[in-house]
Amino acid sequence: MASQETELVFKDIPGGVTAAYGFRAGAISCGIKNPDATRLDLALVVSDLPTATEGCFTTNRVKAAPVRVSQQHIKTGDIRAVVANSGNANACTGHQGIADTKATTKAVAEELGVRMRQVLACSTGIIGMTMPMGRILPRIPELALAISADGSDAAAAAIMTSDTKPKTYAVEVECEGATFRIGGIAKGAGMICPNMATMLCVITTDAKVDPAELKRATLAAVEQSFNRITIDGDTSTNDTVIVMSNGASEAPVIKSRSACTPIFRAALRHVMRELAKMMVRDGERVTKFVEIRVQNARTYQDAKKVAETVAKSLLVKCSWHGGDPNWGRVIHAVGYSGARIREEFIDIYFGGLIAAKNGLASTTPVRELEKVTQQPEFAVTIDLNLGSANYHVFTTDLSEEFVDFNAAEYSAAVFAKRQTGLV
Amino acid sequence: MASQETELVFKDIPGGVTAAYGFRAGAISCGIKNPDATRLDLALVVSDLPTATEGCFTTNRVKAAPVRVSQQHIKTGDIRAVVANSGNANACTGHQGIADTKATTKAVAEELGVRMRQVLACSTGIIGMTMPMGRILPRIPELALAISADGSDAAAAAIMTSDTKPKTYAVEVECEGATFRIGGIAKGAGMICPNMATMLCVITTDAKVDPAELKRATLAAVEQSFNRITIDGDTSTNDTVIVMSNGASEAPVIKSRSACTPIFRAALRHVMRELAKMMVRDGERVTKFVEIRVQNARTYQDAKKVAETVAKSLLVKCSWHGGDPNWGRVIHAVGYSGARIREEFIDIYFGGLIAAKNGLASTTPVRELEKVTQQPEFAVTIDLNLGSANYHVFTTDLSEEFVDFNAAEYSAAVFAKRQTGLV
Repeated sequence: MASQETELVFKDIPGGVTAAYGFRAGAISCGIKNPDATRLDLALVVSDLPTATEGCFTTNRVKAAPVRVSQQHIKTGDIRAVVANSGNANACTGHQGIADTKATTKAVAEELGVRMRQVLACSTGIIGMTMPMGRILPRIPELALAISADGSDAAAAAIMTSDTKPKTYAVEVECEGATFRIGGIAKGAGMICPNMATMLCVITTDAKVDPAELKRATLAAVEQSFNRITIDGDTSTNDTVIVMSNGASEAPVIKSRSACTPIFRAALRHVMRELAKMMVRDGERVTKFVEIRVQNARTYQDAKKVAETVAKSLLVKCSWHGGDPNWGRVIHAVGYSGARIREEFIDIYFGGLIAAKNGLASTTPVRELEKVTQQPEFAVTIDLNLGSANYHVFTTDLSEEFVDFNAAEYSAAVFAKRQTGLV
Repeated sequence: MASQETELVFKDIPGGVTAAYGFRAGAISCGIKNPDATRLDLALVVSDLPTATEGCFTTNRVKAAPVRVSQQHIKTGDIRAVVANSGNANACTGHQGIADTKATTKAVAEELGVRMRQVLACSTGIIGMTMPMGRILPRIPELALAISADGSDAAAAAIMTSDTKPKTYAVEVECEGATFRIGGIAKGAGMICPNMATMLCVITTDAKVDPAELKRATLAAVEQSFNRITIDGDTSTNDTVIVMSNGASEAPVIKSRSACTPIFRAALRHVMRELAKMMVRDGERVTKFVEIRVQNARTYQDAKKVAETVAKSLLVKCSWHGGDPNWGRVIHAVGYSGARIREEFIDIYFGGLIAAKNGLASTTPVRELEKVTQQPEFAVTIDLNLGSANYHVFTTDLSEEFVDFNAAEYSAAVFAKRQTGLV
């Protein structure tokens, strides 16, 4: 299981989504959410070489226009660019939304001299409003000029919504005497935990990866990273992970049984995990970062149910916010998770300290437990002592500020739009 | 489906759990949570006549001692009393907890001159601490003297935890020229929505109900009331609903096909629904009462999934708190509910006003929608336009105060206990 795997150590490098050779990125400010704003809100990532590209898209049955369009385009192969915006999700926008995304990918393709189907699109922001195309399309030539091998930070900044920090990460990997690089940018925050997750991630690598292997490695890495923070089916209308491989490095081709395949898979998983952790740590107004580890469940599904139920429990989250070592709320959530459990077998730990033994209060003084739960980051281990299956997720507390922050998004957005004469 | 059923109108009467003839109730103050406190915290409801009694207990796999003991006792039949306390859940207390509950029921039985197995028990409060039996057992004789035909309000007050108001309701029903009464007390609040639900309810009736019919009617009424507010499997370690029928009225026996059976079932459901609504309205620090109605789903299960997912969505709840008509968040939750939907068929209404038509923003001005969502009570209707199945639940917003209120229960309880020399 993931938490028991040995993590290989990789060399961190700067450069994010342009760390790998042959990729350029950049961003401009279009005023998509607010015409008066000057923040970056339209990003472009480009491969100068042909690519194998894999995508993971939201499982939400309500899908934004860029998700629908990208799912079509990616079938073509040889994707050359990803255009991504913040400020508007282009979700629940019907035929107009599809037409707007297509127009954007077409304009980008023309600037880059590629076909429209070689361009993918991502959006994040408010649901239910059409895109301000009059402020986007005329700026595409400028966007195409803004890309460079140093543009990762600008692209990372342009896809932020309620994120307080850009999320960017890259590693260099050695294998069989050659090196390759994997890096990416991501945005998360807002809706990640516990109920809605608008997450976008674009990863690039100059390793040469066989398309079938790229698919396997991407799916496995997403399962071990982003799917541990976006719980259950709670994905947004726009969630998208894109991995582009252009083979610019000298490293040998990575196929299902190549010597470098295990290290490539581990490196891709590592990059996604680091980006996923950045998202959780930057969750909207949260103050705690908590890993829930479930051990010795009867089955993998049981372990997963327990971890996700505890992570989602509102009252458990409130107790973490207060730094309260309330193991009673944890065991209560374990009880309604649907997993097979024996109350009298359950042990619960905060950090390395046992809080409940065999379903009963341990003798650990509550002051000692509090020293763990009042830290900004800690682990909660739930040992079911029934089998040998494990699972873990990363989650956060719930703060008063989260509620306040989320109370009036729609009205505010409609009013902003009205003031600019758009509705 | 429930929301489409015709509700019969019943005559409200005072008296709560002692409105029906032959029942007495009362309460005393034992200082269960805090020895210095003077609030009522131990209640007793007694039938002076033999009863048929039905119980519904938590589906949580972690069950409090009083739940385990009551599930055993109720098999005996002819239950004569229910003893209930607030301030301590007696959950995760192992063999000691079972012994404590048995000792309490035994002491009550001795005072009443019945067998121990004719007494049920309920507890609500903190999880993981043993009961202060030294403050309870010596007071049982006093408790037995405190009961009267006017004692419903005292009993309702004694089972409150974070409830701000006692919950009591009763009706008088006419059928075939005779009358019978049904009434009850309940506590909820704290953990009801959306994730944990410590709810206790004791209902009494002087109708003479056949045990098999009592079971059917009770299960159906719970499904149509408390199961619409405690969502999915999220029930607490202590949830208990008890219905006692003593036949003190002149009304003919209620069996599966009696003339009065439909009216009895409807009246029992009505009493439970009224108590359930009181719980939601009194949810911890909530400010909104919202009914989620799902219409025209493909199946009942699909309708239920959509209603429960929307009711549980944290970001939807935040938007209600702000009075924000954010239909985008609603449709987003519909999308990840797991139900079969067609985005382009979905209509969403706030009150009687359409907010989204065919999955797109309607033309209703947001100011008009806000007039609905800024009310303290409103309905959200989600029409999937796919089939004919309906479902509805009652829920609340999520407020900053809820988070604050729930942040440090355990430490505070441990410290209170320590100050009294108990740990």
